[in-house]
Amino acid sequence: MALRMSTLFLRTLREDPVDAELPGHRLLVRAGYIRRVAPGIFTWLPLGLRVLRRVEAIVRAEMDRIGAQELQFPALLPREPYEVTGRWTEYGDAIFTLQDRRGNDYLLGPTHEEMFTLAAKDLVSSYKDLPLALYQVQTKYRDEARPRAGLLRGREFVMKDSYSFDVDDAGLSASYDRHRGAYLAAFARLGLEVVVVSAMSGSMGGSRSEEFLCPTPVGEDTYVRSAGGYAANVEAVTTVAPDPLPVDGLAAAHVEDTPDTPTIAALVDLLEHRFPRADGRAWTAADTLKNVVLTVRHPDGRSEPLVVGVPGDRDVDVKRLEAVLYPDTVEPFTEADFATTPALVRGYIGPQALGSDSASGIRYLVDPRVVDGTAWVTGANESGRHVLGLVAGRDFTADGTVEAADVRPGDPAPDGSGPLEAARGIEVGHIFALGRKFADALGLQVLDESGRQVTVTMGSYGLGVTRAVAAIAETHHDGHGLVWPRSVSPVDVHVVATGKDDAVFTAAEDLARELEELGLSVLVDDRRRVSPGVKFADAELLGVPTVVVVGRGLATGVVEVRDRLTGDRREVPVPDAAAAVVTVREEAKTSTAVRGG
Amino acid sequence: MALRMSTLFLRTLREDPVDAELPGHRLLVRAGYIRRVAPGIFTWLPLGLRVLRRVEAIVRAEMDRIGAQELQFPALLPREPYEVTGRWTEYGDAIFTLQDRRGNDYLLGPTHEEMFTLAAKDLVSSYKDLPLALYQVQTKYRDEARPRAGLLRGREFVMKDSYSFDVDDAGLSASYDRHRGAYLAAFARLGLEVVVVSAMSGSMGGSRSEEFLCPTPVGEDTYVRSAGGYAANVEAVTTVAPDPLPVDGLAAAHVEDTPDTPTIAALVDLLEHRFPRADGRAWTAADTLKNVVLTVRHPDGRSEPLVVGVPGDRDVDVKRLEAVLYPDTVEPFTEADFATTPALVRGYIGPQALGSDSASGIRYLVDPRVVDGTAWVTGANESGRHVLGLVAGRDFTADGTVEAADVRPGDPAPDGSGPLEAARGIEVGHIFALGRKFADALGLQVLDESGRQVTVTMGSYGLGVTRAVAAIAETHHDGHGLVWPRSVSPVDVHVVATGKDDAVFTAAEDLARELEELGLSVLVDDRRRVSPGVKFADAELLGVPTVVVVGRGLATGVVEVRDRLTGDRREVPVPDAAAAVVTVREEAKTSTAVRGG
Repeated sequence: MALRMSTLFLRTLREDPVDAELPGHRLLVRAGYIRRVAPGIFTWLPLGLRVLRRVEAIVRAEMDRIGAQELQFPALLPREPYEVTGRWTEYGDAIFTLQDRRGNDYLLGPTHEEMFTLAAKDLVSSYKDLPLALYQVQTKYRDEARPRAGLLRGREFVMKDSYSFDVDDAGLSASYDRHRGAYLAAFARLGLEVVVVSAMSGSMGGSRSEEFLCPTPVGEDTYVRSAGGYAANVEAVTTVAPDPLPVDGLAAAHVEDTPDTPTIAALVDLLEHRFPRADGRAWTAADTLKNVVLTVRHPDGRSEPLVVGVPGDRDVDVKRLEAVLYPDTVEPFTEADFATTPALVRGYIGPQALGSDSASGIRYLVDPRVVDGTAWVTGANESGRHVLGLVAGRDFTADGTVEAADVRPGDPAPDGSGPLEAARGIEVGHIFALGRKFADALGLQVLDESGRQVTVTMGSYGLGVTRAVAAIAETHHDGHGLVWPRSVSPVDVHVVATGKDDAVFTAAEDLARELEELGLSVLVDDRRRVSPGVKFADAELLGVPTVVVVGRGLATGVVEVRDRLTGDRREVPVPDAAAAVVTVREEAKTSTAVRGG
Repeated sequence: MALRMSTLFLRTLREDPVDAELPGHRLLVRAGYIRRVAPGIFTWLPLGLRVLRRVEAIVRAEMDRIGAQELQFPALLPREPYEVTGRWTEYGDAIFTLQDRRGNDYLLGPTHEEMFTLAAKDLVSSYKDLPLALYQVQTKYRDEARPRAGLLRGREFVMKDSYSFDVDDAGLSASYDRHRGAYLAAFARLGLEVVVVSAMSGSMGGSRSEEFLCPTPVGEDTYVRSAGGYAANVEAVTTVAPDPLPVDGLAAAHVEDTPDTPTIAALVDLLEHRFPRADGRAWTAADTLKNVVLTVRHPDGRSEPLVVGVPGDRDVDVKRLEAVLYPDTVEPFTEADFATTPALVRGYIGPQALGSDSASGIRYLVDPRVVDGTAWVTGANESGRHVLGLVAGRDFTADGTVEAADVRPGDPAPDGSGPLEAARGIEVGHIFALGRKFADALGLQVLDESGRQVTVTMGSYGLGVTRAVAAIAETHHDGHGLVWPRSVSPVDVHVVATGKDDAVFTAAEDLARELEELGLSVLVDDRRRVSPGVKFADAELLGVPTVVVVGRGLATGVVEVRDRLTGDRREVPVPDAAAAVVTVREEAKTSTAVRGG
């Protein structure tokens, strides 16, 4: 049955909502698709819910196509399984926890690896039951530290999460690839351009992980790509390190007074004036080794200092560092911390006082560029003094290397495909080749062909359904409103009746009925005493891809068919109107390769 | 695409699960439809989820038919609106509450009157926007004190809740009736017999309320009905009270020693021996007035004593009393309480020491049968003594009457339609003419035709979706397994291939494809090396209404079509098999009046 503007639970707003940061989000609120209830928590009004359901249906169809089976776990979950895998503690503040009336601990599920693993353990016993892929489309919860005003980082959100179960690595690889393909198909049907980037596995562990990012300047994920086709989340970029050099014949290190060098720039300036290099090369910040002290906080609350050594022309990127250290987090090293750690001479920290084996015992990790045989200017662990020519592998050895230095446009792609450039995107999917972490923790084994118990290897695949709606809105609008892809538009056709003549309203209803009989969903603007200008503005704001105006032209037997995306308008004789709309839609369907579903 | 037993995520169980109390629930677990995760919290496995979705679809279709619009509120809700209406406190332990990382209070929504009222306030401003009906199909939460092992009283469950908004009482009445009709239609399509009973509004307030109960001995709701058509929840039954009698000329009350009468029976015995009545009528328990002391607990934690006077042949029904006192609850009056309340002489409590205006100040409510002019034997407020001939309205006046005495088979129906009989049922729906309680509290007003602001009047309508699945299971099974109504069966047809011959499996797949092309959903038992006996047992357990056996008969060109409900079996030539199945299904469709959807 056609929706009617006269009765639809909808109120469009002319003004931007004060609590909306992003253009797509502002339009979703103004057009009456969603309403904010609390930070990161939204109500889906009738038109918004229709879009959400269409997105869900497309995602379901692509999951079904690869043979994944749908089921539904609860959102309210007991603590025990998350205790076994350690995630109850790891998640920390990032999950909502609560107690029931008997004092038992529960959480609101942010992702369901534990539950799926236990379900497979319950129902599966043999390699013959594998490969298996299971999924759900479910409301999930995360207590985001900074819920953005919008659906992009909600605290209650809908996610499709699926899990694959295989007996061996080759099976996992095939399952992973099937999901990867299903995601690309789903995003194409949703009208979402995506870039697949290498990613860190973070909390998930495992061997292989990719993110599906929808490129847009308003995205909150930064990634890098090269002209040669490399793409990675910034956290996943690996540094191109030089080969180690021989240390034989390098000059001995020497400590020098370096007064008034509170910054790297001041130090470089002093080096250039007081210690010009014999070969005439100018000193640069990249010749210095900057040692940054941080506090590492473990999920259980314990903390310890960590020093990260990076070339002086770079900073430590805390997000990159935290991705490596997960589930530990990083905090600033405070005045008070320095006061109780005399081994660290603020501003003059040098490698010789650092490392687990040193007197200080302070853990020391360096950038991959700090290879053996490289010589550095760095702190001498004495106030006002630096050491020159300190050679890695000869004068100091760190506890290891760490990918913590910031990544910059122009840095080489690790696969040699050229210099990197930075871009921003919205993460709409993330897939993980988990491996056996969860199966090991929860004892998911099957009998293999030779009758031995083997641990199952798993994949975990998330697709943000509400996030996808937000990403579509952010990438499909213009100055007048939303412009939905046909595959997810709340209705197929928006019929606008203008004027005061009853005949216009009757004709609009007749056309709506005809379109519905052809299988299209229709919204009729049947409001009386509302001006054509208001109706057209509402139609542009709502963003249905095809608008049919039934108005003045009716006197000469025509209606106007408008394409919301191209702005194309053409007059069509009334008897041909429905067919014309269907044709427009079929053409679009073919061109965006909408399949099945 | 057909489901296949060889790959379906399913494991049927031969043994009953230990934690399942009810036969339908045991079968849902054994047949692999659901799994328990925690008390009152379940996972919907693939077949179960299909049933749940079909139930949802039928409910949605009936809501859409009456013009209700679907939207979706969050489950995680901020405290404030529930604070305004007082329900944050009223709900007490019955809701799950939690705090986010900033310490703000949230609840997991048990029902959404507040949110719908606020949404209407946001979007609606004029009588022209009304009538309006909104609904959602949503996961809801209640921290049940005694979550029964099953879906009947889950702590996480799916409910369809809708709300109507009208400008006046006549509008509310029409909206209520539309919902009532939609519920009857939905339950009919679900194959659920229901009895509509008058109910108490409880937490909702309002003027009119009815429950839809599915009659079954395993139901946890008790209701009563008369042969003449009366039906009510026990809480809602009103007592047929006699007319008041004149007090003039009645004998004066007199206090007597009544040693050794710890029970009503002993007291009646003593009365019969020591004080035989002049007119020869035997004393009965109904001649005595039993005064029961209870502690009434308010939602804020305060408590106070309450004495309820009922005829000595009846007990106080705490559920009936709590329905009246809602949101207060009732607890036993303890030894310690007696010790600190000397006005109450245990075992000998009489009306003369009771009432808000008495010296004790203890609230005193009596059964409606205690009308003015009735004379009672009751406690004398002295140990070992009772008073005879104490006349209501002359010797004592209670603070009011209360519907708290138990209702018994044989009691008269309040509408004069005959004696009541007791029955049990599962509550699958509950509708309330709420009135203006929530609109008043949250300021939902619209302009009426004369331009005045008027408060909107609301209805609230709940239909338990997961509860409906449970009710169907409890009322649709036999000794061998489930017997789904066609409208909600996980698939339309179960094709069982038996034997070792490849031709059998090929024929089964061909038939499945043919059935699917005719629009039916199919499950094929394509398992090799599984005996026919196991397959038939599984088919009976799963309960798909039509089973087609492709086996030995194939040699002579026939398959067997079995009706799960009637047990009817007939052989059909292979070429006619699909048509035969469709015919069976169409006949059934017609007979159960499945419409649309």
